[in-house]
Amino acid sequence: MPSISSVAIVGGTHGNELTGIHLINNLAGGIHSLPDSLDYSFLIANPDAVAANTRFIDVDLNRQFALDNLAYQANSLYELNLAQTINRKIGPKDNPRTDLVIDIHNTTSNMGATLIVLESNDFYRNMAAYLKQHMPSAHILVEDEVSYLEHPYLCTCGRYGIMLELGAQPQGVCRADVYAQSVEMLGHILEYVVLYNREAVPEFGGFEAYRLLEVMHFPLSEEEKILGLVHPNIQDRDFAVLEPGQPMFLMFDGSCINYDGEQSVYPHFINEAAYKASAVAFATADKFIW
Amino acid sequence: MPSISSVAIVGGTHGNELTGIHLINNLAGGIHSLPDSLDYSFLIANPDAVAANTRFIDVDLNRQFALDNLAYQANSLYELNLAQTINRKIGPKDNPRTDLVIDIHNTTSNMGATLIVLESNDFYRNMAAYLKQHMPSAHILVEDEVSYLEHPYLCTCGRYGIMLELGAQPQGVCRADVYAQSVEMLGHILEYVVLYNREAVPEFGGFEAYRLLEVMHFPLSEEEKILGLVHPNIQDRDFAVLEPGQPMFLMFDGSCINYDGEQSVYPHFINEAAYKASAVAFATADKFIW
Repeated sequence: MPSISSVAIVGGTHGNELTGIHLINNLAGGIHSLPDSLDYSFLIANPDAVAANTRFIDVDLNRQFALDNLAYQANSLYELNLAQTINRKIGPKDNPRTDLVIDIHNTTSNMGATLIVLESNDFYRNMAAYLKQHMPSAHILVEDEVSYLEHPYLCTCGRYGIMLELGAQPQGVCRADVYAQSVEMLGHILEYVVLYNREAVPEFGGFEAYRLLEVMHFPLSEEEKILGLVHPNIQDRDFAVLEPGQPMFLMFDGSCINYDGEQSVYPHFINEAAYKASAVAFATADKFIW
Repeated sequence: MPSISSVAIVGGTHGNELTGIHLINNLAGGIHSLPDSLDYSFLIANPDAVAANTRFIDVDLNRQFALDNLAYQANSLYELNLAQTINRKIGPKDNPRTDLVIDIHNTTSNMGATLIVLESNDFYRNMAAYLKQHMPSAHILVEDEVSYLEHPYLCTCGRYGIMLELGAQPQGVCRADVYAQSVEMLGHILEYVVLYNREAVPEFGGFEAYRLLEVMHFPLSEEEKILGLVHPNIQDRDFAVLEPGQPMFLMFDGSCINYDGEQSVYPHFINEAAYKASAVAFATADKFIW
């Protein structure tokens, strides 16, 4: 197995998610120490969106890294051009120069420190296991509903790519506690990479992880007005179980909509501000022992 | 004393503060009942900003209601024109047709339900007392550093004007618990107005209130980069005391900056996202018995 030499650490893929932006600036400024056996690059991915304190200028940068998009010719969408530039710099996706891309995100949902992996092979499983061992509060979320290369995420232009999702934090705010979690989480990820390179990764037993199932939409009127809100029983309780029949939405008229699925699910990205435009209230996951 | 007949209830003055927007839509839709002895109008103040899910298009609408601004001729700033339109509709500020303007806001800071009044006369004092009596968790914030008419806030185009500030809630999110607080708070304010009209306001004893002192800026480098974050000891502790010598900022390098004032103060608007552009970390207040 080839070792991990080049690591790109990325923030500001969404310009109003401040933890990664400050972290990248501080890493580049030498404020935090990193294992010295790796070759780092630090990237503020969407500087125009950072300057405007907005998620994106034209389109979501973190949805532009599908292979088809990266093959387009010149076009007028800022983030589509930017994705091609970034792909040339740290990719290209089909033959990457970067061994590992770590893309740092925030969410307004109360997901704590969540590692998102897009494949379930041994490299990612052991990374997740190492993280859970050293930072038990961290959550592991597997999004492998499509293959790694089919994902449109920025991190997929590395040979390996992961996202660190940190919340709850409002857009445009940087909380000290969330920042500290990002430093801790990144540290453990890099410790694991060093072990991996030394072929010194221990055997790990099973651990709790979540696998994305589906997104749940707000209840809408025919005119697409929201008719209710995420129920207080699930607000802030990302990764806690939601059983069939339990309340899911509290309608403005005082009534409830209960979850009518057939299995227990684990809501996350609950009330993520960025999903307002698509009326997504939360996502569900299955819990499994990995 | 003239009674309060016409009440304008306003949301969406900032387009990404969702509580008021949903509340106005639901009030207009008859979902919540209101005392029937008053004459209501409901206003989504900045519909373009609401549609764009942003605080404002060109400039902050809630800073455009100074008398000078309202007297300008045609200009190219969307919100300055909008302020004039609103002022014609529910003002004009120097001779208002609306007796009371209630403008509903959200903050990313943990201020709970805060009533902001801009004068300290008996009408507002009794309103605040009534609210504290019926909703003891509510905070009262007095911003009377300038006269009522000198304030640039939208609510000042009413004969009386107040702001309801509800948090913590990220921009672009609507939490059920915060929404419920807005309904409760508005209800108590209107109950008070009905009592006022009936000349049936009881005598109230003293109660806790806060008066704005100053804004505190993030520690900045010469290049105006932020060097540290709000200290975890004060994060989420809006209206808790900050004593001289206590930590105020946690620097990225691990050091602290302590509060070096001479008196105890009460931070609020702690990590309000909208104040990022001006690098304001929080505001301080004095506590007093009103």
